[in-house]
Amino acid sequence: MTPEPIHDIAHLAHVELLTDKPAESLDFFVNILGLTESGREGDSIYLRAWDDYEFHTLKLTAASRTGVGHIAYRATSEQALARRVAAIEKLGAGIGWVGGDLGHGRAYRFHDPDRHVFEIYFDTRKYTPPPGERPALKNQAQRNHGRGCAVRRLDHVNLLARDVAAIREFLPAALGSRVTEQIVLDSGAVAGCWLTVNNKTYDIAYTRDFTNSEGRFHHVTYAVDQREHVLEAADIFLENGVFIETGPHKHAVQQTFFLYVYEPAGNRVEVANAGARLILDPDWQPVTWTETERKKGQAWGLKTIESFHTHGTPPVASDH
Amino acid sequence: MTPEPIHDIAHLAHVELLTDKPAESLDFFVNILGLTESGREGDSIYLRAWDDYEFHTLKLTAASRTGVGHIAYRATSEQALARRVAAIEKLGAGIGWVGGDLGHGRAYRFHDPDRHVFEIYFDTRKYTPPPGERPALKNQAQRNHGRGCAVRRLDHVNLLARDVAAIREFLPAALGSRVTEQIVLDSGAVAGCWLTVNNKTYDIAYTRDFTNSEGRFHHVTYAVDQREHVLEAADIFLENGVFIETGPHKHAVQQTFFLYVYEPAGNRVEVANAGARLILDPDWQPVTWTETERKKGQAWGLKTIESFHTHGTPPVASDH
Amino acid sequence: MTPEPIHDIAHLAHVELLTDKPAESLDFFVNILGLTESGREGDSIYLRAWDDYEFHTLKLTAASRTGVGHIAYRATSEQALARRVAAIEKLGAGIGWVGGDLGHGRAYRFHDPDRHVFEIYFDTRKYTPPPGERPALKNQAQRNHGRGCAVRRLDHVNLLARDVAAIREFLPAALGSRVTEQIVLDSGAVAGCWLTVNNKTYDIAYTRDFTNSEGRFHHVTYAVDQREHVLEAADIFLENGVFIETGPHKHAVQQTFFLYVYEPAGNRVEVANAGARLILDPDWQPVTWTETERKKGQAWGLKTIESFHTHGTPPVASDH
Amino acid sequence: MTPEPIHDIAHLAHVELLTDKPAESLDFFVNILGLTESGREGDSIYLRAWDDYEFHTLKLTAASRTGVGHIAYRATSEQALARRVAAIEKLGAGIGWVGGDLGHGRAYRFHDPDRHVFEIYFDTRKYTPPPGERPALKNQAQRNHGRGCAVRRLDHVNLLARDVAAIREFLPAALGSRVTEQIVLDSGAVAGCWLTVNNKTYDIAYTRDFTNSEGRFHHVTYAVDQREHVLEAADIFLENGVFIETGPHKHAVQQTFFLYVYEPAGNRVEVANAGARLILDPDWQPVTWTETERKKGQAWGLKTIESFHTHGTPPVASDH
Repeated sequence: MTPEPIHDIAHLAHVELLTDKPAESLDFFVNILGLTESGREGDSIYLRAWDDYEFHTLKLTAASRTGVGHIAYRATSEQALARRVAAIEKLGAGIGWVGGDLGHGRAYRFHDPDRHVFEIYFDTRKYTPPPGERPALKNQAQRNHGRGCAVRRLDHVNLLARDVAAIREFLPAALGSRVTEQIVLDSGAVAGCWLTVNNKTYDIAYTRDFTNSEGRFHHVTYAVDQREHVLEAADIFLENGVFIETGPHKHAVQQTFFLYVYEPAGNRVEVANAGARLILDPDWQPVTWTETERKKGQAWGLKTIESFHTHGTPPVASDH
Repeated sequence: MTPEPIHDIAHLAHVELLTDKPAESLDFFVNILGLTESGREGDSIYLRAWDDYEFHTLKLTAASRTGVGHIAYRATSEQALARRVAAIEKLGAGIGWVGGDLGHGRAYRFHDPDRHVFEIYFDTRKYTPPPGERPALKNQAQRNHGRGCAVRRLDHVNLLARDVAAIREFLPAALGSRVTEQIVLDSGAVAGCWLTVNNKTYDIAYTRDFTNSEGRFHHVTYAVDQREHVLEAADIFLENGVFIETGPHKHAVQQTFFLYVYEPAGNRVEVANAGARLILDPDWQPVTWTETERKKGQAWGLKTIESFHTHGTPPVASDH
Repeated sequence: MTPEPIHDIAHLAHVELLTDKPAESLDFFVNILGLTESGREGDSIYLRAWDDYEFHTLKLTAASRTGVGHIAYRATSEQALARRVAAIEKLGAGIGWVGGDLGHGRAYRFHDPDRHVFEIYFDTRKYTPPPGERPALKNQAQRNHGRGCAVRRLDHVNLLARDVAAIREFLPAALGSRVTEQIVLDSGAVAGCWLTVNNKTYDIAYTRDFTNSEGRFHHVTYAVDQREHVLEAADIFLENGVFIETGPHKHAVQQTFFLYVYEPAGNRVEVANAGARLILDPDWQPVTWTETERKKGQAWGLKTIESFHTHGTPPVASDH
Repeated sequence: MTPEPIHDIAHLAHVELLTDKPAESLDFFVNILGLTESGREGDSIYLRAWDDYEFHTLKLTAASRTGVGHIAYRATSEQALARRVAAIEKLGAGIGWVGGDLGHGRAYRFHDPDRHVFEIYFDTRKYTPPPGERPALKNQAQRNHGRGCAVRRLDHVNLLARDVAAIREFLPAALGSRVTEQIVLDSGAVAGCWLTVNNKTYDIAYTRDFTNSEGRFHHVTYAVDQREHVLEAADIFLENGVFIETGPHKHAVQQTFFLYVYEPAGNRVEVANAGARLILDPDWQPVTWTETERKKGQAWGLKTIESFHTHGTPPVASDH
């Protein structure tokens, strides 16, 4: 019999983003993207979308550089967390336990093969809305305040890596992630890989870093309920002078309806909608796109914009 | 430590619906709802939505009565299936193994406390599109043919039961389902209960059968990608003379954007969109709606239509 | 040869609404509906939607009662205005010239047969956005600020009248309006009438006032670009505790996708979308709905809510 | 006093399109775009969208070349038609009366300065739906059959011209059209001009033909009710192998949400949505875009695709 799927990790929990323009970045995330601040500590501000159930999904940290601080996943139970820690230690990728912060209890940190820092935890702090933020419908974390793009929840993160094939081996072993789609070039190199720990079609994606830098960040994505909300987000970005890199359009890979912008410090942010698409099949076979297929561009023919392959944070010399 | 969540069942797989007007029902499901026929055997026609990955999600069977034949869930592995069979047998609810049909291999059948027939299986037949149905994007089961409402995938089923509280105990024990929302009346009676085995907010719902009949069916739901598609479905139903019972509107419970119609034999069918809402929290606590809260009607104030509480299939004397 | 269509009046220009809760009404129109204040004078505040080209489309006036102050149309030219004044004086409906206000120059006032006050003018003050309100695209009056429902432009007004048949004669004679749709009861009484001066399917509607009061107001409507925006408005109203009377749903008459709420003083306000529907035919024949046809409810079967027939402003004893 | 606006022409009525692949073109227009055939005569097939009120809005004519046969406008009355004929004859642009065809009575033909053939008429044949095409709502020309893109109505036509400035003088004089937007290059040359005879923001556009050919065609556009329908059209084109040139995206000029494809014979076809945007102002001043402004690309930053400036029908040597 084939080995059983692993369900130890529940979901992508939060992303720590570094900014060297903290005031401008905060204004973007709160007033334009529409996140809500739930707390501050040290150089960090904790932010969340109106239907994120935890204390935060974005930890915005003032720093001397941009890019990602760490990526966090929440385990399905303490027992599951212990199993993952054991697996990661066996892989030799562990960093060790940290005490947690405003948003959650103790967490276990590790590196992916590209030196991005991850953490996993179970003990969390769920968001309790203050009076003015209580939703009209009790099955929602916070009222939909309608501010800016008013994104609903964290969706996924996209990282750059020198060796995506190594990631493709590592994450399933470390977290129990499944590869749902990938791009394999004619040379056999893996140019992109999309993985998930649950029924979302992906919660993390890696694309190849052609600069050979390590630990870089491509984008973080928040989900909206409808494709029309992505179009409205485009109008909001336009009216607020936010740089729109590409979109709205529909990806061929994963079929996500996307829109990419840069927040003031240069980190790429996506607003996206996946429609009703989910991976329900427990033995889903990865969809592999060839180099020829990817040359067709996005779903409706839009050519992939050059900066999508070159711009990451922190920027490096060869970035555009 | 609290017990760990169970992940033995992957998803709701298909529903067998009985019709005493097979030709009219088939025309509805194919040309108006937009399903595609994948096979026929005996009195049954196998149907699926364009992004359903299995051979079928609806088995439409000509019969002398309406209502539901059986409800099927797919397990996450053979091992998980064996665990569920053991659990169900321990509950004394088992019927036994059946050999499968055109759509899947052997399956284990059981009764819920209201005598609805369920089956669980792992061995399935995945849909392979014939040349004319091949999708432009290879990460999709079949081309989106755009016929009728062109629903994307099976979403959930809703059954009637005399004792919903009994169901609320049974399904988590049998399938590892989680209760995500429920309605508890002032009397303590459970008027409705929504459960899921995965990250969908629910794949099955039970509402109280006030006629005290057993084994009755409330509705089956197919998902579309956008709320606008539900509105378009309303226009399609209108133009085709399909009886619209209620909607489009947004449910308070689960926030689903809904539209209910009756197919020609009287079985209720829903076209729905859930937006980006998912249950990602591994220790999600059930949301309990009180009688007073439910008297407010649906999310935007629409009063729940009387027939929603009374019409089920097969009809009984006290039905309207 | 048949007489030529009249094009002397360009469009519905603004509505003066009376409120006995001016602070609460202002908060509703600015922060929830999403209008912008362009000026104040005396007891009135001038408001407009972000793509209204004139200084204002809503004049909100503090008063001891609710309902409508006056309704204004803009003429296509000074010559056209003079022709209309002559026609109205011939009808014996004239009140006389007034000097205008913050929003426009001199205007000619008259009564409709139900004693609502109208005015027509040509000389107007076009909106010039201050720096913070300049749009990114210069073909738009003001930036789309995204505040509240962020409605785009004034759409139409609906008044109550004891004798709708009299209105149906009067408005075409006074303004050159065309009747596009109407409801004629089995008794021959006209229960509703929709008229337009341009290619919009209607800019004014009258429905019968069963209380036999005069000069009452039914609702004012602002248009949004998409049906999805009406659904979003419903969520915004829900979260802000605004009373939703009925909708979102699609009218059978005129096919407008509608949502009705009461602003804090009790005046009914609609957020609506007409899709791409226009009256382009220069010899369009009025569509007449019978009593039987109207008993089918709205387009998708929603029964017309009772208060829609009874609630007007100012309220009268027999109102609900 | 300034001269009064002219209202002699009601609307763009139909476009005759030439195809050298008549069977393939017909399949595209009927089964993919979703028009309905209302008649045939000679080499022509008459087609219309489901809410077009006339017998046809597209006359598809088999020919040895592609491009446009003629463009027709309907007058507001017989008297108005006579006035326009007199004006056109005075301009020296007249061709003379023709007897009409299946779709309308006698029409007056003339040339624009780029030698495109136009006709104007008042006497028309309104569409009467056969039993199977009767709409559920009587205020609609035909049932919304939901076939293909199921476009609602003809929207506008775009022609190429060597001298757009000459057109900008001619059409207002000939038809009473108003210039609503234009692109004026730094050289003073007019690169594009958008005109309307009614409240639509434009019913015809001209863009500069850099090949110096005459009488060429750029595209014809059908309107859908919602932006989401444009996105769905993109999926339909994708699944049917139709070449998508560019879009969906939002134009900066006129803000139209657009999608361009080539029908099998190479004529460009647009599916578009204008939201609630109308030109209601009777003294609207043309919006003039500079060369610098237009270099910013479309509303959300999409660069205008090269072929948009070069591909016209019939193709000429310098076309791409």
